Amino acid sequence: MRPLSKITEGLIGQPMFRLLANTQAKERRGERIYHFEIGDSDLPVHPHITQAVKKALDNGRTHYVDSTGIIEFKRAISDDVEKRLEFKPSHGQILVMPSNAVIDFVVRCVADPGDEVIYPDPGFSTYRSVIKYTGVKGVGIPLHEKNGFHLKPIDIERRITDKTKLIIVNSPSNPTGAVLNEDEILEISLIAKKYNLYILSDEVYSKVVFDSRQHHSLGISDQCREHTIILEGFSKVYSMAGFRLGYAIGPEHVIEKMGLLFQTIFSCFPAFIQYGGISALTEHEDLTRQRIKTYEGLRDIIYEKINSIPNISCLRPEGALYVFPNITRTRMTSQQFCEFALERANIALLPGTCFGDYGEGHIRICYARKETMIVEAMDKLKRALQDTRIERLKLAHERI
Amino acid sequence: MRPLSKITEGLIGQPMFRLLANTQAKERRGERIYHFEIGDSDLPVHPHITQAVKKALDNGRTHYVDSTGIIEFKRAISDDVEKRLEFKPSHGQILVMPSNAVIDFVVRCVADPGDEVIYPDPGFSTYRSVIKYTGVKGVGIPLHEKNGFHLKPIDIERRITDKTKLIIVNSPSNPTGAVLNEDEILEISLIAKKYNLYILSDEVYSKVVFDSRQHHSLGISDQCREHTIILEGFSKVYSMAGFRLGYAIGPEHVIEKMGLLFQTIFSCFPAFIQYGGISALTEHEDLTRQRIKTYEGLRDIIYEKINSIPNISCLRPEGALYVFPNITRTRMTSQQFCEFALERANIALLPGTCFGDYGEGHIRICYARKETMIVEAMDKLKRALQDTRIERLKLAHERI
Repeated sequence: MRPLSKITEGLIGQPMFRLLANTQAKERRGERIYHFEIGDSDLPVHPHITQAVKKALDNGRTHYVDSTGIIEFKRAISDDVEKRLEFKPSHGQILVMPSNAVIDFVVRCVADPGDEVIYPDPGFSTYRSVIKYTGVKGVGIPLHEKNGFHLKPIDIERRITDKTKLIIVNSPSNPTGAVLNEDEILEISLIAKKYNLYILSDEVYSKVVFDSRQHHSLGISDQCREHTIILEGFSKVYSMAGFRLGYAIGPEHVIEKMGLLFQTIFSCFPAFIQYGGISALTEHEDLTRQRIKTYEGLRDIIYEKINSIPNISCLRPEGALYVFPNITRTRMTSQQFCEFALERANIALLPGTCFGDYGEGHIRICYARKETMIVEAMDKLKRALQDTRIERLKLAHERI
Repeated sequence: MRPLSKITEGLIGQPMFRLLANTQAKERRGERIYHFEIGDSDLPVHPHITQAVKKALDNGRTHYVDSTGIIEFKRAISDDVEKRLEFKPSHGQILVMPSNAVIDFVVRCVADPGDEVIYPDPGFSTYRSVIKYTGVKGVGIPLHEKNGFHLKPIDIERRITDKTKLIIVNSPSNPTGAVLNEDEILEISLIAKKYNLYILSDEVYSKVVFDSRQHHSLGISDQCREHTIILEGFSKVYSMAGFRLGYAIGPEHVIEKMGLLFQTIFSCFPAFIQYGGISALTEHEDLTRQRIKTYEGLRDIIYEKINSIPNISCLRPEGALYVFPNITRTRMTSQQFCEFALERANIALLPGTCFGDYGEGHIRICYARKETMIVEAMDKLKRALQDTRIERLKLAHERI
């Protein structure tokens, strides 16, 4: 067997998909699994979006198109950004592509192997997967529960060296649910400017913020003209994970190169799906607002439920679709806890360590699920933990 | 402006998309363009395929799925391969992904920067785009019209060094229309085995072979278990270019790594599109056969038309969707000829040099177009060339 390339040694994939394969095996054996591990909404896509895709298919939008995105969609994106962030990106600043791929493309276009990329720990697992296989050096910034998992700008500045090329920021955050405030965002912008660094601002949860909070974008200060590249997508608030639709907004010279990379690898993004994106951005905004309210309600339910379980606690998420409970008092590691939950309560969770070393002691739960499922599963988890405690007490008694 | 990474210096993109942007500008000014440059079929997707996609959307197939492909589609692929190539790949040998991306993924997974990759010249432009930006060394094999543009196995063997990692083969060929025969395929297989090299066999036109020819696959000799990775897709015979659907079949250890790369970059391929692929492979085979007949008829028409134009000639394509006429007797370069055709006859073509240095003296025409359009455009081209000849004669007279 002829050896493969060096990059293949660094490929680790995404933990979520490994687990997905495991639980599917259990399900094929007829067991019912409560899925909380997948960062995907159980709520259906709004029909007007699928309707738009179907109409585009009927209209023959099944051919090659501009590899940077169709003009109608770019217009819709540009208008949406202007409405939300008060600047209007040019079409040359926009690249339509899967959101997840933006991470790989930005890292590869701004950093060479050996260069340093600063990223949040715990943070979305793809940051580390990309960093690892591309051979850039990842410099993690530990996020602490005592700070509400907020990224401290000073912690970024402290880690900047001559080799630093890129800072990855993610607000609202996966897996912690933290939403950075205006001051924090402004400070990070100033640091990027001061040290002349690129920022990849993963804002895929920008629309999912709670308690009348506002989403503050890193793109505002430079209007994505100098150093900020915004990653946006439709997977989350629009429940369009399976469409793989997203976009990047950034400085034209960066977007141009990312566009050439996209063209080289993928040719172009399916036009008929882009029509779904237009529909999502321009039609039935009321439904989108309503869905965010639904998520906020579910957030309240999971928050109450989790904190009613002995030895487990969590912060109240400020945005995104996750809680990141602390399970250290159960004396299990994250991994052990997840194995326990799957085995004893048929609940699939992700260990915090999937999101970095500083995720140890935590688990991630995606609560974009039906209310009844959340309640049922959390009650099961509580009982399973209580049963174990009783078992342990019995065992201790027998020893005496 | 902070400098970008080294790979961005090597990004050249695909010439087809550059031209697409140019001609679209002309069209926005209200001019009618005859598009022959795009390797996409003008014929519509068969309705049963779009129907299957629409049904999958209605059934909520809009979530994350197995990142290597849904099991139902893998089954359909495996059955289709067995029927055509007489071996049945395991599910671990199959990876669902855009065909074009297979090129980038195979090159990056089997070769490091500095390693050598052998590829056909003229050949599909993405081979060179990927080779250039990844920093591997491309070793082109000149294909000659006098050999019917057939790749000579001895020409491969001659170019193998200690650094060689991969041989890219494409039959039926874009842009030449050549289809390798059984002996040629067998010899190439033996060379790969002898030197322990990987082969990327781009078989995206496998179903488009004419005159009762058979498609011979490089995967047969090792059943894609040792060194052969087959690239397949739905863009061509099924007119599904805009769906970006394809797959790779290869040795499990290669497919595993390519799968991790796909997961890292793209998460997974939209499930609802995969249902379109199932429909294409399993329903209405009669329509597919009929479409191939249609292409064969169009091949005959363009062949006659081209050869009726003074100073231009072409071989009769054995497969794929292209003719690759020789235009050297017009005394124009490929590039000049394409500019002439666009300016004087509103016909968009691709210069042969888009496919490598050995494409000079040729142009590529994709003839998957309506018959009337082919006839009209070729007549226009003929007249434009005649007019120029008359103009030149007049000019010569005046000088006398």
